[in-house]
Amino acid sequence: METNNIEIPQGFRLLALEGGIKYAGRKDIGLIISTRPCSYAGAFTTNRVQAAPVRLCRERLGHNIHAVIVNSGSANACTGEEGYRDAVTITRLLEKGFGFPKGSALSLSTGVIGVPLPVEKFETALADTSRAETGAEAFARAIMTTDTVPKMAAKKVVLPGGREVRITGFAKGAGMISPNMATMLACIITDVDIPVKKLQKYLLEGLEDSFNAVTVDGDMSTNDSLVVLANGASQTALQDKEERRAFKKALFEVMESLALQVVKDGEGATKCIEIFVDQAKTRRDAELAARAIANSLLVKTAFFGNDPNWGRVIDVAGYSGADVRESRMELFYHDRVIFSRGKPLPFDKKELAAKLAAARDIKIRLSLGEGKHSRRLYTTDLSYDYVKINAEYTT
Amino acid sequence: METNNIEIPQGFRLLALEGGIKYAGRKDIGLIISTRPCSYAGAFTTNRVQAAPVRLCRERLGHNIHAVIVNSGSANACTGEEGYRDAVTITRLLEKGFGFPKGSALSLSTGVIGVPLPVEKFETALADTSRAETGAEAFARAIMTTDTVPKMAAKKVVLPGGREVRITGFAKGAGMISPNMATMLACIITDVDIPVKKLQKYLLEGLEDSFNAVTVDGDMSTNDSLVVLANGASQTALQDKEERRAFKKALFEVMESLALQVVKDGEGATKCIEIFVDQAKTRRDAELAARAIANSLLVKTAFFGNDPNWGRVIDVAGYSGADVRESRMELFYHDRVIFSRGKPLPFDKKELAAKLAAARDIKIRLSLGEGKHSRRLYTTDLSYDYVKINAEYTT
Repeated sequence: METNNIEIPQGFRLLALEGGIKYAGRKDIGLIISTRPCSYAGAFTTNRVQAAPVRLCRERLGHNIHAVIVNSGSANACTGEEGYRDAVTITRLLEKGFGFPKGSALSLSTGVIGVPLPVEKFETALADTSRAETGAEAFARAIMTTDTVPKMAAKKVVLPGGREVRITGFAKGAGMISPNMATMLACIITDVDIPVKKLQKYLLEGLEDSFNAVTVDGDMSTNDSLVVLANGASQTALQDKEERRAFKKALFEVMESLALQVVKDGEGATKCIEIFVDQAKTRRDAELAARAIANSLLVKTAFFGNDPNWGRVIDVAGYSGADVRESRMELFYHDRVIFSRGKPLPFDKKELAAKLAAARDIKIRLSLGEGKHSRRLYTTDLSYDYVKINAEYTT
Repeated sequence: METNNIEIPQGFRLLALEGGIKYAGRKDIGLIISTRPCSYAGAFTTNRVQAAPVRLCRERLGHNIHAVIVNSGSANACTGEEGYRDAVTITRLLEKGFGFPKGSALSLSTGVIGVPLPVEKFETALADTSRAETGAEAFARAIMTTDTVPKMAAKKVVLPGGREVRITGFAKGAGMISPNMATMLACIITDVDIPVKKLQKYLLEGLEDSFNAVTVDGDMSTNDSLVVLANGASQTALQDKEERRAFKKALFEVMESLALQVVKDGEGATKCIEIFVDQAKTRRDAELAARAIANSLLVKTAFFGNDPNWGRVIDVAGYSGADVRESRMELFYHDRVIFSRGKPLPFDKKELAAKLAAARDIKIRLSLGEGKHSRRLYTTDLSYDYVKINAEYTT
């Protein structure tokens, strides 16, 4: 998926402002602006502790949306009713500044939990947007926190008769990544003309194999949010099943690309590991086993050390809660089987360790031998740098 | 609890042998020997993948036991039927060597998963035990793997009329610690005269606040085993409720001491963190919240960095599955409240960070404000050394 020269769907503007919220001398506020009202779909963290902006975005589901303000540096979570009022205030500032109706803007925040939003800094930044940086990359950079690279994905869908719609997405997030529905912050904009119910349906369908299929540290955030805005500026609606399928496919590709970019930039990560569990009795068994393996410290540290310590994978499957039997499991590293139905198979440990060391992307497959359900997840290794980044985060 | 000059209950001998299993030039096989047959109680990992020695120990519950052979260097897990036969073989060697009946010895193993037990090395080591090192500390050292200190605890129970019974326990384990019933390897020996059913009942009662209350990395092992042997050599039985209570209290203290020693020696740990969750609606809610906090990478790395990043604790409670409301929670670091019913309270971050830096033992308390159930768990921080130890474990 191309991430250079990202095309912006028609009728949208993307801006990056310097708010001075946490980091000095960098843009830390991103704006999405659409003069046409947008159909708006969203998915949010299932954490019972929800940040103020998540509450606001949930309440505005079903509204027509014109704008989104995204900030890094403060999560506006665990900030009580004041935090909620702050979120309303900054969206109101944005609405007034651009002449949009009340309640037509969204607020998305990430950063340290428990720190109040510095509303006056937003006021100053929004007072004059004429010197804002514009464009996709500027926006993507403005929303970064511990991310090392901006995360973008774009697709153009060409429909019969030469009609075109564009889908462009952005994400941020590198730690506290274990979404259970959406994750981190992601915004997807498209100029298709689509009813909100359909858009919401597609978004939920796409989640399972995109944002819900990635984990960095097993820690679900208070702020996970995915919002999709469709402004209809292409004057193109989806006319039949085939056109809907083409759009959905492109949307899912954008979602999956963004989710994978998040894992690949996981805090301190040196590797991206694909965990594929198949032959499970139920979908839930596959999910339990894959999720436990993806979050195991011992599995993740072994990959950091390029250590083919496969016993840890079998161990984790055993305690994952999934219905597994040692006598039926088969484990593959890349395509090589190293444990089969209760017995370790001989392999050249040095050779496999060298292969692991040389790879940035690693695939393991655990076949449970119990049924026909499967689950694919993506995770990272666990490195010194993960510890460093997170030990030094707020102090 | 005194760990120097550990007294050995009457009628037991403890030996340490050099088997050369993984480490050269050190004792790596420990033996517990009792000429009198012992009542034997045990608790084992609930991992669905169970090591061969765990299978053997489970099968021999209810048998009279005379001896235990404990080795480090190989877990004898994921080794198939051969692994089970190897476990039987080494217990048989032990039984024959000391003239004990068939089926009266136990095998406990830890170390790398998937490596067959080098039976011939056991044969050699057991062929001549006359040069074995003897005593409590020698035994405790022989069973260590990544442990940095031997783990022992002892209690003497003085009953009316000057009758005495002794309880002495040993444990090993520093990583792959998240037992769900017993953990790692622990052996407790006592010279009390007690029926096996009572012994098993006491053991299960004591688990909840000892081995099941500790976690280092959330990874449950294939080999977790706790065995308790009572040989009656003191010729002292427990005659009434009060005597039983006194014995039970001492047994629980030994179990809790061993469990806490395991956490304090957790791989790479620089701190031991007590997580106390109270005011939960149900016991299960308290357990879910405490367990999730104790296993969160972000909470653990923050403590390593002496970072009072309390928002992570609230976040984890939110996704733990426990019934919590931001508006009712209160969070304390040591005895200082820093978040109360939805609102962060002001505190001197530098001062608290300095206090965290100075402490080896840290207490946090999260009051959910929902009911009256509680759970106390012990965990470690997550350091560079944890990553180092586990990235380099088998290669």
